[in-house]
Amino acid sequence: MAPNEEGGEEALLPDLPRGPLDAYRARASFSWKELALFWEGEDMLRLKKSIFSALESDPVFARPDRGLPVERLRELTFLRCRRLLQLDVLRADALLRNPLQLLALITGLGMYDWSLAAKAFLHAFVFGSAIFNSGSERHLKYIPKIFNMEIFGCFALTELSHGSNTKAVRTTAHYDPATEEFVLHSPDFEAAKFWIGNMGKTATHAVVFAQLCVPGGQCHGLHPFLVQIRDPKTLLPMPGVMVGDIGEKLGQNGLDNGFAMFHKVRIPRQDLLNRTGDVTPEGTYVTRFQDSRQRFGASLGGLSAGRVCIVGMAVANLKLAVCIALRFSATRRQFGPADGEEVPVLEYQLQQWRLLPYLAAAYALDHFSKSLFVDLVALQRGLYQDNQSARQAELGREVHALASAGKPLASWTAQRGIQECREACGGHGYLAVNRLGDLRNDNDPNCTYEGDNNVLLQQTSNFLLALLDRGARFESPLKSVDFLAAYPALLSRRFAAASLQDCLDSAVPLAAYEWLVCYLLRESHQKLAREKRAGGSDFDARNNSQAYCCRPLALAFLELTVLRRFHQHTRQPGVPPPLRAVLRRLSALYGLWSLSQHSALLYRGGYFSGERAGKMLEDAILELCSQLKDDAVALVDVLAPPDFVLDSPIGRADGQLYRNLWGAVLQQPGVLERPSWWPEFAASKPAAGAASSKL
Amino acid sequence: MAPNEEGGEEALLPDLPRGPLDAYRARASFSWKELALFWEGEDMLRLKKSIFSALESDPVFARPDRGLPVERLRELTFLRCRRLLQLDVLRADALLRNPLQLLALITGLGMYDWSLAAKAFLHAFVFGSAIFNSGSERHLKYIPKIFNMEIFGCFALTELSHGSNTKAVRTTAHYDPATEEFVLHSPDFEAAKFWIGNMGKTATHAVVFAQLCVPGGQCHGLHPFLVQIRDPKTLLPMPGVMVGDIGEKLGQNGLDNGFAMFHKVRIPRQDLLNRTGDVTPEGTYVTRFQDSRQRFGASLGGLSAGRVCIVGMAVANLKLAVCIALRFSATRRQFGPADGEEVPVLEYQLQQWRLLPYLAAAYALDHFSKSLFVDLVALQRGLYQDNQSARQAELGREVHALASAGKPLASWTAQRGIQECREACGGHGYLAVNRLGDLRNDNDPNCTYEGDNNVLLQQTSNFLLALLDRGARFESPLKSVDFLAAYPALLSRRFAAASLQDCLDSAVPLAAYEWLVCYLLRESHQKLAREKRAGGSDFDARNNSQAYCCRPLALAFLELTVLRRFHQHTRQPGVPPPLRAVLRRLSALYGLWSLSQHSALLYRGGYFSGERAGKMLEDAILELCSQLKDDAVALVDVLAPPDFVLDSPIGRADGQLYRNLWGAVLQQPGVLERPSWWPEFAASKPAAGAASSKL
Repeated sequence: MAPNEEGGEEALLPDLPRGPLDAYRARASFSWKELALFWEGEDMLRLKKSIFSALESDPVFARPDRGLPVERLRELTFLRCRRLLQLDVLRADALLRNPLQLLALITGLGMYDWSLAAKAFLHAFVFGSAIFNSGSERHLKYIPKIFNMEIFGCFALTELSHGSNTKAVRTTAHYDPATEEFVLHSPDFEAAKFWIGNMGKTATHAVVFAQLCVPGGQCHGLHPFLVQIRDPKTLLPMPGVMVGDIGEKLGQNGLDNGFAMFHKVRIPRQDLLNRTGDVTPEGTYVTRFQDSRQRFGASLGGLSAGRVCIVGMAVANLKLAVCIALRFSATRRQFGPADGEEVPVLEYQLQQWRLLPYLAAAYALDHFSKSLFVDLVALQRGLYQDNQSARQAELGREVHALASAGKPLASWTAQRGIQECREACGGHGYLAVNRLGDLRNDNDPNCTYEGDNNVLLQQTSNFLLALLDRGARFESPLKSVDFLAAYPALLSRRFAAASLQDCLDSAVPLAAYEWLVCYLLRESHQKLAREKRAGGSDFDARNNSQAYCCRPLALAFLELTVLRRFHQHTRQPGVPPPLRAVLRRLSALYGLWSLSQHSALLYRGGYFSGERAGKMLEDAILELCSQLKDDAVALVDVLAPPDFVLDSPIGRADGQLYRNLWGAVLQQPGVLERPSWWPEFAASKPAAGAASSKL
Repeated sequence: MAPNEEGGEEALLPDLPRGPLDAYRARASFSWKELALFWEGEDMLRLKKSIFSALESDPVFARPDRGLPVERLRELTFLRCRRLLQLDVLRADALLRNPLQLLALITGLGMYDWSLAAKAFLHAFVFGSAIFNSGSERHLKYIPKIFNMEIFGCFALTELSHGSNTKAVRTTAHYDPATEEFVLHSPDFEAAKFWIGNMGKTATHAVVFAQLCVPGGQCHGLHPFLVQIRDPKTLLPMPGVMVGDIGEKLGQNGLDNGFAMFHKVRIPRQDLLNRTGDVTPEGTYVTRFQDSRQRFGASLGGLSAGRVCIVGMAVANLKLAVCIALRFSATRRQFGPADGEEVPVLEYQLQQWRLLPYLAAAYALDHFSKSLFVDLVALQRGLYQDNQSARQAELGREVHALASAGKPLASWTAQRGIQECREACGGHGYLAVNRLGDLRNDNDPNCTYEGDNNVLLQQTSNFLLALLDRGARFESPLKSVDFLAAYPALLSRRFAAASLQDCLDSAVPLAAYEWLVCYLLRESHQKLAREKRAGGSDFDARNNSQAYCCRPLALAFLELTVLRRFHQHTRQPGVPPPLRAVLRRLSALYGLWSLSQHSALLYRGGYFSGERAGKMLEDAILELCSQLKDDAVALVDVLAPPDFVLDSPIGRADGQLYRNLWGAVLQQPGVLERPSWWPEFAASKPAAGAASSKL
């Protein structure tokens, strides 16, 4: 699939169809095409267009496919995944040239369908990079087999009874020097590998994490093994492998999540992915790491990339939801100042207040997602080059901290935003064909996989607290903690905006967030110290400091980071002048709205005092909503994929809300037919209840 | 279905199976059977048991039915609804004797399946009472036909382009004196009746709301007409009626929501439901109401009962979700103070903090739901008796205000609680078989139908503001506004708890809420006045006062009312002494947790000052969580329906989390089989991409 080389701006960004949205589009303060070019860049627009065109022009990707039985959804998703491989869409060379394209590819495919994106991504990138990163020269032969589908892969870490606590995984791999094989074994069904994407129906091979034990019984902790689980010719399980499908999920039902139990399954010694540890033919364990904790960290290190990707996946969902809800709100009319004259619901302040902050969040988090991905790429480059510098280690910790709270912040913001959009579209938002349900269901696992959100946040608060404990200079490669150099003096900072007008600037929430993070850092530090003084173990002290200290600390730190990056992005000299006002409004709205969740702490800690500060914050949010409502349609035009991908009659670019919805309803099979079971209606009528006649 | 008359307490409340939950059950501070008896009463326990037993013993209700195609779900739900009518479960006589049984019936059926509950309820009660309440003597003949299923009914108000603004409904009914008929007509598809439950596949008759017009062209506003839409013998549509199914929804897919357009459909004059207005054979409109607004109110008045029922429906969903999540949390072990020793996740303060407030909310809102239902029954009794007293009118307004904010509060609390429970169960919460997805999807429309939550809240704030405007004595039949007699003096009240211990009492949040409602009432009043002074119309002034004034006013008022009723209930002398401590803790936790969302306002308005107040509130919430965690399993044992109804392997009463889940997974059809489309795996392999080999 070659990107379309001819087209200029016109081909990349075709005019939108005329219709009921024209009125808002005409009132926009900027050109949506200019913003699209600035926001995405021409290369990325071209890539997305080529992905979307490839999907739209191939019948295997034809809509609609909603409402199909699970088995059929899994088949369809497999066929589509195969087609992606045939089309060579997942082109490693282009992705290595410009890694941001990988993020665009995942989120572009995901905007079309998350089951397909997950299936392809798990096979080609998660399985592939597990082999590439955890294996050695002898495993490289598997890589081309991934892309020509000789094998189909999955990544098998979690078990039925262990998810977050991966160290407690119980599958074993005992080395047998007699045959130079490992014997993989699941002690019982609680140790069955479980939830493994692609394992349910399609994977022929799995990277299986198991406790590596050598003769004499010594175990060396979790290691990855490449295990064949099915015969690629027949898709029948290999001897000793009990493999199956875990069944229907709340969403992403095109993806076949599965389970597997191993009954003394023998694999060659060479199929240990031996980058962090190996076993000699005689059965001696060898490793370049001295400490098992360090080795464990290295073997799972590749997982953190997943969190960064999930930020982008959640943002993609939030974008789709706000596109649907805002186009709906601009065309749905209900009530009005006088009888018979109805206004678009977007004209209501309450509707603006419900939706526009999520539009601002979609922009803020989108920028964060892309910039964090760039940081991740820099980190990975250092890892590949075996960079052992202190800066590389610091960068690793910082990216880990940002990703570990970035995933919770993005996935929760998307989950809440989708729900708000669903409700803001009223009953029509509850109709499956309009897609908000799929978005909610498909985004939901972003709150859980790669680590439960609440558990992950602890990584970030631990990072911040460790900086404080070590008395380290507050400097980091990405500068996210540099402001803490002014800690604790920064705690005497106070809210200083003199007027509502002053407040309409993201510098105001930025300053407040710096204070807030310092405040929560001190609170968390003191709370931990109190818990320990009261005789608590480290384990208890930490657990008892989460709810009101460490958890909000991690979230506030991430909100600050997202806001700072967005603020700086909107102030950089490269922003075309006609776009400055709208981008700064978005930045201010995101900052003030996020901050408003913490108003109680701002008052409690003395940053705010008096009624005026809190009211000014609210007034500023409402004022920005009002300033942005005429730009809202143009702003979603920038974010929206083509109608074919958005797949929502109430969210189509032509704004023909009712025609599109009515058309979609009438297209459903059997819509006007009586049900096949109509004879049941006349059969077996109940006798009139003695009771009923008395009513 | 006769209630089981023999059984005593033992039969009503059988012992729970032994297992991993024993440890928590043994640590409970009270007997769950004693609380169940106190909370529900023996009659209600007996009724629920008889409903649940009837379902469990009849194969038509057999589980599982998840994952079936929509058409099959609709068939199954129809067959089950017919079976309910055959079993005479919806017994009007018993329900009239003890109307609370109606609530127990709806929520009991709903706990089993909301599609079935909705289908039966819409047919027997919504359709039935629309005829009974809006019609006259001549329509009573239809009532027995409902119960013997000669006809099947639906209630058709909303249209494709109008939901909330029902007055803008565009279907017309022109009277033709020549034939003494009404001619029903849909001017275009935007006026199609849409979203109508039971209309999609099964309804033969509809109560259709249309604009009544008499010869000469004068229109008299919306009136209900009884219209036959299908032939009961064939289920084919009647001539001129285009009727169909709106298709898949996010949930409740057993219920066939539908649409209908009328092309000059003629119905006899007598089929106007003529309680509020009638047309003489000659075509003269007659009514006992002088003002069309008053008539409109009376004709839709019956709808408010729906909101009260939805409170109970949402509470039932919240109960199911906390049962599942807390039993899971008590048996799922993850991490621990030392390697190899894992603790139940319920032992983590963060998990307690995430879930126990929703457990407290389930109790608080359950009590509110039942008590509001009793109030509604008193109101309805007055309406039937044509009570014209001022007290009856006041009662009507008060119940309306409580229901209009009670529905939003209950449905949102349930929706958020279900999501929290889903996430708190990690990946296993995302597996469809564990039911949290169904609960989320089935509860979601509670936020929308009978009025969008945000729109409904305005009814409640308008009620409070009107009291203030009229300078009325603050007294109401249900005493929900009596505390406002101390307004505005009450605004000088301040937070007075001296110690954490003082805070562990629901009197503390109760006092704070009284201040808060007064504060928000004043804020709303002033904001409206400011908007009007600035030249805004009433329409604009009201719209611009919602986000931060009227909306939180309505919610805080309802939270106060819920808390006050629960507080009083837990203090009444009839509470058995062994139950007092746990109930008071629940009441305090609900109050403090709800209040904590408003901390910013408490500070801003001066009710809180200094860091200590806010911290004390947080410490009190955590302390109550800690005090309640050993009671949590026994508390959900009281709320949980039998395992058959709860239908969640991770939530079963035996606590055998993994055995139940593993068993359920293995029961799924084809779980270990290769997919039927396995030959596709070997076919059409992609060529190895030029790119891929370079990786």
